[in-house]
Amino acid sequence: MVRGAPMQAFLSSHPLALLCVQAVLVIGTSRLLAVVLRRLGQPLVIAEVLAGITLGPSLLGVFFPSALAMFFPASSLATLGLVSQLGLVFFMFIIGLELEPALLRGLGKSALAISNTSIALPFALGAGVAWWLAPTLSEPGVPLLSFVLFLGVAMSVTAFPVLARILSERGLVHTPVGALAITCAAIDDVTAWCLLALISAVVRSTGLGSAALTVVLAALYCSAMWLVARPLLARLARERTDRRGISQRLVAFTVVLLLLSALATEIIGIHALFGAFFFGVIVPREGGLAHGLRERLEDLVVVLLLPLFFAYSGLRTQIGLLDTPAAWGFCALLTGVAVLGKFGGAMGAARLTGQSWRDSISVGVLMNTRGLMELVVLNIGLDLGVISPKVFTMMVLMALVTTVMTSPLVAWLQRRDTQGRGEGPSLHSS
Amino acid sequence: MVRGAPMQAFLSSHPLALLCVQAVLVIGTSRLLAVVLRRLGQPLVIAEVLAGITLGPSLLGVFFPSALAMFFPASSLATLGLVSQLGLVFFMFIIGLELEPALLRGLGKSALAISNTSIALPFALGAGVAWWLAPTLSEPGVPLLSFVLFLGVAMSVTAFPVLARILSERGLVHTPVGALAITCAAIDDVTAWCLLALISAVVRSTGLGSAALTVVLAALYCSAMWLVARPLLARLARERTDRRGISQRLVAFTVVLLLLSALATEIIGIHALFGAFFFGVIVPREGGLAHGLRERLEDLVVVLLLPLFFAYSGLRTQIGLLDTPAAWGFCALLTGVAVLGKFGGAMGAARLTGQSWRDSISVGVLMNTRGLMELVVLNIGLDLGVISPKVFTMMVLMALVTTVMTSPLVAWLQRRDTQGRGEGPSLHSS
Repeated sequence: MVRGAPMQAFLSSHPLALLCVQAVLVIGTSRLLAVVLRRLGQPLVIAEVLAGITLGPSLLGVFFPSALAMFFPASSLATLGLVSQLGLVFFMFIIGLELEPALLRGLGKSALAISNTSIALPFALGAGVAWWLAPTLSEPGVPLLSFVLFLGVAMSVTAFPVLARILSERGLVHTPVGALAITCAAIDDVTAWCLLALISAVVRSTGLGSAALTVVLAALYCSAMWLVARPLLARLARERTDRRGISQRLVAFTVVLLLLSALATEIIGIHALFGAFFFGVIVPREGGLAHGLRERLEDLVVVLLLPLFFAYSGLRTQIGLLDTPAAWGFCALLTGVAVLGKFGGAMGAARLTGQSWRDSISVGVLMNTRGLMELVVLNIGLDLGVISPKVFTMMVLMALVTTVMTSPLVAWLQRRDTQGRGEGPSLHSS
Repeated sequence: MVRGAPMQAFLSSHPLALLCVQAVLVIGTSRLLAVVLRRLGQPLVIAEVLAGITLGPSLLGVFFPSALAMFFPASSLATLGLVSQLGLVFFMFIIGLELEPALLRGLGKSALAISNTSIALPFALGAGVAWWLAPTLSEPGVPLLSFVLFLGVAMSVTAFPVLARILSERGLVHTPVGALAITCAAIDDVTAWCLLALISAVVRSTGLGSAALTVVLAALYCSAMWLVARPLLARLARERTDRRGISQRLVAFTVVLLLLSALATEIIGIHALFGAFFFGVIVPREGGLAHGLRERLEDLVVVLLLPLFFAYSGLRTQIGLLDTPAAWGFCALLTGVAVLGKFGGAMGAARLTGQSWRDSISVGVLMNTRGLMELVVLNIGLDLGVISPKVFTMMVLMALVTTVMTSPLVAWLQRRDTQGRGEGPSLHSS
């Protein structure tokens, strides 16, 4: 039996109890915040990111440093990181499963132009700003090229899953603009992850030869997955699934393949999460395998393991590091550049390919969502040592602001739409 | 990129990759073994336990010590243990969910007598043997009472889940004998876990006052769960579930309650797994909540997290410690006593309450299954320091032997049954 003061001693000698406390704190906090934020029209992910920040050094650490030391001691970070990364492997797999390959086929001219521009412009702007800010913000010892490329990619991320949820919450999935935005987001997601894999290879490699080897191996890996693993899975999906759904043996087999795929990309030198995501993409959609896997893996991952990732990210976000007006200025600048690149790029391309101004604005607003994907990318950057905790914090705030913006702007566009009816289909269900 | 020799360095600096390798090894090995063992009529759990032992110091460590050091380094054991314990919390919860409270109500005279006897006799025999063997087998410093009580409980365990699976594989669930055995196993499970909770309290407490406090708190905990948490959940289950199943928010809420329940029992001084199990028992069965939770949590737990527990148990099983004929003799003795107590107790009570000899033998054979539950209990004993790694290994072998025995014996009884038909209903579907 433990009371009051001995609680700290108890938790530090009972790692399972500590992990349970951490999970309860972050799940509980985010669900409480979600109750308030839902009234403001914000998606759950905002509550989860905020819960992580609340429980980290930015808030809990400022007001209750002893509580932070008790519930999230430094010694527990390695385990928390590991468990949350295992959760992310499964989460990225599910994100891969959620991608509808049908979206990627039969693309309109608009979708292709918008997605290319909404990657290229923020990448170029992000890389430009990074090149300019590197002397101030980059850690000594980090190659300029790594810093510049990474910030470029980090600016180009679109939160496919959050966007999908916002569209479905507001009943916009089947509107022309909703369908266009979700298609572009899917292409953006795949492109951004490929770029990130490429940059991981560059950052981790010791020389040009090593980087080239990694790229060759990555190409071999992708071909093997596409040409060997995909047909194999398709055969299994046909033979082994019936009306009762998929067997536990098939789930076990898929999990082994998933772990091997994650392992392969980690060994090659691109990130384990890329292997998990790509494996999700190649699982055949016919025969109920993809649907069954999502249904049977999603809940525990989303409900238990993902919150641990938010807690882990929150612990690494130190708003206290932004302690000068200049730092806040850089943070605002990065946010502005991110919005300009993504919103501007998507909107401009939409307008130039013949969409109306109104639809172009809507697409731009939707594509500007960063959400959880940005956090995943930023954590990889911090792990690789490409960005400092300070830049990490700035970029987390950027992700938060751009994601918070989306829902109210969409609501405002919808209202305007309702008032000025008759001007053609836009954010209305068709 | 990593090749050959640098693999060890790579794995020791990439904990996520190491965890993936460990999971792939143990899932892969157990599924391969299962293919062979299924032909011999053995359930999956045997393959899983054997896979754990194969990958541990008993086999891999003897023939490929460098592989053992590379794939299961001592530094990874803490994490492996923690992740597998988190998995066990969810597994015990699912076991609790699987218990049909209807089984516990409206018990026949037979069921009550059989379950009481099949706990009491092995407990008494186990405790007796433990008392006799304590000078030889117990570690110095372990109180005699703890050792004796723990081995008593360890002998009384019945594997409710494995038994349920064997019965369902052989189509025996709805035969009179099958129904009787599964009912008794359910009562045995609850009783054994309560005894284990009691003994954890005794072992962990520093004195009689502390033990009494733990028992009082445990009683308070059980009452609070039964009187507060159960009606609350029942209301939620009625209000929040509909034909589309349960919402993710309800799953999140249940997971928080589950973690709190596990945490409460851990803080009180009985084991976290008891809180998880008991919470599973009180989840209302109406309204699809229990069914929905099982469906949405089971796969990831059983497919990914449970194998990590088998690996962890296997690493702690060191058959090499049984290095004298005397040690093997003790191991055989413990196995014999376990069979005598469980099989003898269940069979005797069945016969005395009016079952036929044949049915009594069948009930005895079925109740003798130890399966996974025994491993869970033994790991708790090893963690508490009540039993030594040597006794742990002996008891793991006992669990393996008694579980392996069940399927062939049941098959033999079924065959005999088919030959000598007309002698009344027994192991035939009715």
